[in-house]
Amino acid sequence: MNPTTLNKSLQLKKLDIRDSFWTSYIRLVRDVVVPYQWEALNDRVEGAAPSYAIRNMKIAAGLEQGSFNGMVFQDSDIAKWLEAVSYLLESEANPELERIADELIDVIAQAQQKDGYLNTYFTIKEPDGRWTNLAECHELYCAGHLIEAGVAYYQATGKRKLLDVCCRMADYIDSVFGPKPGQIQGYDGHQEVELALVKLYRVVKNEKYLSLSKFFIDERGKEPSFYEQELKQREGKVHFPFLDMAQDLSYSQAHLPVRLQTSAEGHAVRAVYMYSGMADIVAETGDQQLLEACQRLWSSIVEKRMYITGAIGSMSHGESFSLDYDLPNDSAYAETCASIGLIMFAQRMLLLEPRSEYADVLEKALYNTVISGMSRDGKRFFYVNPLEVWPDACDKNHTFSHVKPVRQEWFGCACCPPNIARLLASLNRYIVSVQDRTIYTHLYIGGELECELDGQPIHFTQQSNFPWDGDVLFKYEGEQIAHFTMALRIPNWCPGASVLINGHSISLEPTIVNGYAHIARTWQPGDVIELSLPMPVTRMRAHPSVRETVGKIALQRGPIVYCVEEADNGANLHHITLDGGCEFSVEFEPELLGGLQTITAKGVKIPSTDWGNQLYKSEKRGQSLPTTVKFIPYFAWANRGRGEMAVWVRE
Amino acid sequence: MNPTTLNKSLQLKKLDIRDSFWTSYIRLVRDVVVPYQWEALNDRVEGAAPSYAIRNMKIAAGLEQGSFNGMVFQDSDIAKWLEAVSYLLESEANPELERIADELIDVIAQAQQKDGYLNTYFTIKEPDGRWTNLAECHELYCAGHLIEAGVAYYQATGKRKLLDVCCRMADYIDSVFGPKPGQIQGYDGHQEVELALVKLYRVVKNEKYLSLSKFFIDERGKEPSFYEQELKQREGKVHFPFLDMAQDLSYSQAHLPVRLQTSAEGHAVRAVYMYSGMADIVAETGDQQLLEACQRLWSSIVEKRMYITGAIGSMSHGESFSLDYDLPNDSAYAETCASIGLIMFAQRMLLLEPRSEYADVLEKALYNTVISGMSRDGKRFFYVNPLEVWPDACDKNHTFSHVKPVRQEWFGCACCPPNIARLLASLNRYIVSVQDRTIYTHLYIGGELECELDGQPIHFTQQSNFPWDGDVLFKYEGEQIAHFTMALRIPNWCPGASVLINGHSISLEPTIVNGYAHIARTWQPGDVIELSLPMPVTRMRAHPSVRETVGKIALQRGPIVYCVEEADNGANLHHITLDGGCEFSVEFEPELLGGLQTITAKGVKIPSTDWGNQLYKSEKRGQSLPTTVKFIPYFAWANRGRGEMAVWVRE
Repeated sequence: MNPTTLNKSLQLKKLDIRDSFWTSYIRLVRDVVVPYQWEALNDRVEGAAPSYAIRNMKIAAGLEQGSFNGMVFQDSDIAKWLEAVSYLLESEANPELERIADELIDVIAQAQQKDGYLNTYFTIKEPDGRWTNLAECHELYCAGHLIEAGVAYYQATGKRKLLDVCCRMADYIDSVFGPKPGQIQGYDGHQEVELALVKLYRVVKNEKYLSLSKFFIDERGKEPSFYEQELKQREGKVHFPFLDMAQDLSYSQAHLPVRLQTSAEGHAVRAVYMYSGMADIVAETGDQQLLEACQRLWSSIVEKRMYITGAIGSMSHGESFSLDYDLPNDSAYAETCASIGLIMFAQRMLLLEPRSEYADVLEKALYNTVISGMSRDGKRFFYVNPLEVWPDACDKNHTFSHVKPVRQEWFGCACCPPNIARLLASLNRYIVSVQDRTIYTHLYIGGELECELDGQPIHFTQQSNFPWDGDVLFKYEGEQIAHFTMALRIPNWCPGASVLINGHSISLEPTIVNGYAHIARTWQPGDVIELSLPMPVTRMRAHPSVRETVGKIALQRGPIVYCVEEADNGANLHHITLDGGCEFSVEFEPELLGGLQTITAKGVKIPSTDWGNQLYKSEKRGQSLPTTVKFIPYFAWANRGRGEMAVWVRE
Repeated sequence: MNPTTLNKSLQLKKLDIRDSFWTSYIRLVRDVVVPYQWEALNDRVEGAAPSYAIRNMKIAAGLEQGSFNGMVFQDSDIAKWLEAVSYLLESEANPELERIADELIDVIAQAQQKDGYLNTYFTIKEPDGRWTNLAECHELYCAGHLIEAGVAYYQATGKRKLLDVCCRMADYIDSVFGPKPGQIQGYDGHQEVELALVKLYRVVKNEKYLSLSKFFIDERGKEPSFYEQELKQREGKVHFPFLDMAQDLSYSQAHLPVRLQTSAEGHAVRAVYMYSGMADIVAETGDQQLLEACQRLWSSIVEKRMYITGAIGSMSHGESFSLDYDLPNDSAYAETCASIGLIMFAQRMLLLEPRSEYADVLEKALYNTVISGMSRDGKRFFYVNPLEVWPDACDKNHTFSHVKPVRQEWFGCACCPPNIARLLASLNRYIVSVQDRTIYTHLYIGGELECELDGQPIHFTQQSNFPWDGDVLFKYEGEQIAHFTMALRIPNWCPGASVLINGHSISLEPTIVNGYAHIARTWQPGDVIELSLPMPVTRMRAHPSVRETVGKIALQRGPIVYCVEEADNGANLHHITLDGGCEFSVEFEPELLGGLQTITAKGVKIPSTDWGNQLYKSEKRGQSLPTTVKFIPYFAWANRGRGEMAVWVRE
């Protein structure tokens, strides 16, 4: 692999989204989510748990008096918010928002210590405790998020103030950590700084940031365990006594050197952030061994440890992966942030090797779990995205106490809401990539692309009614002829794609390499590709080793996974059975939650024979009662009050 | 209700068990369990968690030096062991065992404080902390168990030493607790002393013990909450920081006065111990309101919150009930002690009103969950008795970390093993009861009964091959004719009982009242009743509101609930489906784990089509593969190594 080739994927100059589905989400982020989160970060949302994040920053900056409040990683919420703001500013000027961001950056700069250190928890609360508890205390994680924000803000506005703060902080971190005597041979419990340092390196071109990132990746999991040594030095003191962060090494993927890891273990968000950082290093160095580790860990997730919605994390304890094929629907963790991290990992793998399987998963996580994480009005959020919910059990059976049947306004640990915001605000970065003279289209999201291939400007538009309809139109809008390849992803959910070029059908099969149809030609101004991706309603089954889904099916249409909800089907969703041969009717309902394509099917329900007071009895299976079953997209559940939901239905 | 009538149930003089099934269990308790537990209590079992219980007692008695170890309620293990020993001594002399018990009682007597107080935790570790944390610290619970032991030992041996210790302790407790100024208006977090005080009252006839028991029952759940006041007085100090005992009032059934409680809530063992105590008070006082509360709480359990195995407690958190129809098979708590407590409650309800539904549940819990709690060799124990197990998930998914796929040698919290021992050693007390001139046979366990009805000695034998065969023979062995009624329970699992008296069939239906066939006659020496209870293999279904069992059946034959195990059926038990109309063949396998009746059926398995690396795909349901499915009694699972198990199978 040639690192130089890979870097060409960075040549995109502009990609504006103009899409019937996503534009409204991005507007929601701009008009509702980001302003709402600003209020939340400032503790001004009535009824929501206070964040304390801005207040902590002002205290650290010497602008207010008081003590630190909130989680040890509270700073990261500010950074993720600033990163989202940066992406918004990049697509559209917003002087008022930029003014707020500039003022916040001033506060952050004031909170930075003379030596470059920047972390409100330790500055305010434990000034002597810096770097004494990397396993639990998220200092480098917070630093990483700030670096991502600094890079994004610089790219969006050209303003260097936050970027310079980040460089000073990174320089200081580089002085503290490293292989030299007197330096700490450690790494953060929550990965994030690794991928952030590569971003910083790419912008400021300072090799030491790349080396530092590589150091953190390589150090992790070495023996003797850094976390065990550190814990001993702290005399056993732990920050989160109810968790096991400092001792359960696999929780933070520190159980083995990363190159030897073969299965996705531990805290799911940490895992995918780390894999993303590893992939970034592969992109810069061409490290084959590290690439193979990324490939193995990818396979471990998507072949054995991922929900059909693109969610990951099968258990609440440690917000973690558990074991192969263990995918309980009702006690799932399935954190929104984890699917965002999976998208980040998928995007990076796509840049390393454009194989459609990466984009298939990226699309699955995006259209299902990520947007399920936010209410249709942008004001409430899920941290956990279960695939089956019985609300009364969530209230009373503690096995499900992490599952909230309705979205919450804000969280004490509010990682997910700003993470959704920054992903949606930067969605244009996930749609296409360019490699040599090939433009890969990964996501079918309408918009306009401008890039350069060997100095020649390329300009085209994409149009579709995705995800409700699989017809996609590409138009070459360049003013001159150009020779390049369009590589169109053929999604794994599509049973038979076809392509017309300027109205003429082409034979698709021979052009497909790694799941992309390669259309190489000399493009004339006004040339049009019509890609047709049929979207029949599909009965999906899970691998027979998945216990929770045996005898059940889930409906999928295009990238959208469907679910049944109590609002449409009444309570006791477990009474529903679909017939193996039933037909489906699909209808677009413009009035339903902003417009949704719904599916109805004939099914049956368990007969409601009289059971009297009996809990168990000997009885023949009764005649089932015919019923109509209505499915809505999974992402839209829990927008019509509290009720049951299920993705998997008995067949 | 006439309390005097009820007390006639105490007239049984002797009931010796001679039963092909149970005699071996009782021998196991005598020859293996009780000796093993003595070693365990003395910390002499290699590889097992130390108990420290005897050591604590010796330290409190001033016979050894050292500090307290183990749970705050560790004393109760000694008491339960002594109680089991008493029952063994009652049925059969054992001078060596009696000598050990006498020596232990000497130590206990020395550990008693001058004022009558007896609790090693507080005596050794917190001498100033007596009665400061009733919510969590089990002082009265331990006292209750000691009283049960003292009563049983006195009844078995006639020796008063332990009984006197208990009376002094109870007198002291009676001085501390009560409605008078200066007394504590409180009650123990873990009920037990309530039923124990009624036992003590019945033996020593001191009314104040009955009043004290009634005081504890009546005080519970009053406002303002005693536990909240107590917590405030302790300035928030808690003994079990990971639990919520002091604040979650329903955990210890203190959320409402007991007379107002309508559903079984909180810690399942506490609940059924309390209900047992309530029923005892009803028996002594005829309190109608309290009886109605018992009936409501009974219904709440058996109609909505009990597993088909007679297990209770749907969640690990708080070892608790959760909500109606929430009966997860894999994350069940289903504690052995809770089913023992349910048996205690059922027995007391039977004495209040001889209705077969109580005995049906008693039998269900006994033949399934209770003996599932112990390995066939008597050396290993389950605390949790799940209805479905995937061992790998127990290791790696913390949702199931309370579920052990193999029985353990001993537990840090070792409530269950000695509880099984005392129940099995006293099993003769659960078989029949006498009321007026009616002898109720609740359990079909072979043996010999002697009792007196109005001064006339009655003597008969019971013989059967239960639970493998439903033919039961009763023989009147008296030397004189006698007029009385035999009331034979017709179990709810039996589709068509019949009775022959001296070979002549009788019309059964008209004799049945509340589930008992009443055979009133003048019995001649040698008279024989042949009761025939057919035991077809029965497909059981759960109420359609139970989510985890929808579309599934469980097999039951007689009182025995069956399960499939990996040892017989290979891994992936979830692949098995039984056909709605399949036939069953039943076979007694004398070599299998000491002799078990097994069931085989024709079923199908999911086809093992090649899924390659795919986790989800669109696929027609494949042709299933015929297979033979073997079921063994649930109680016998996990005696052939680690493996999967399931009670409910898809149909």
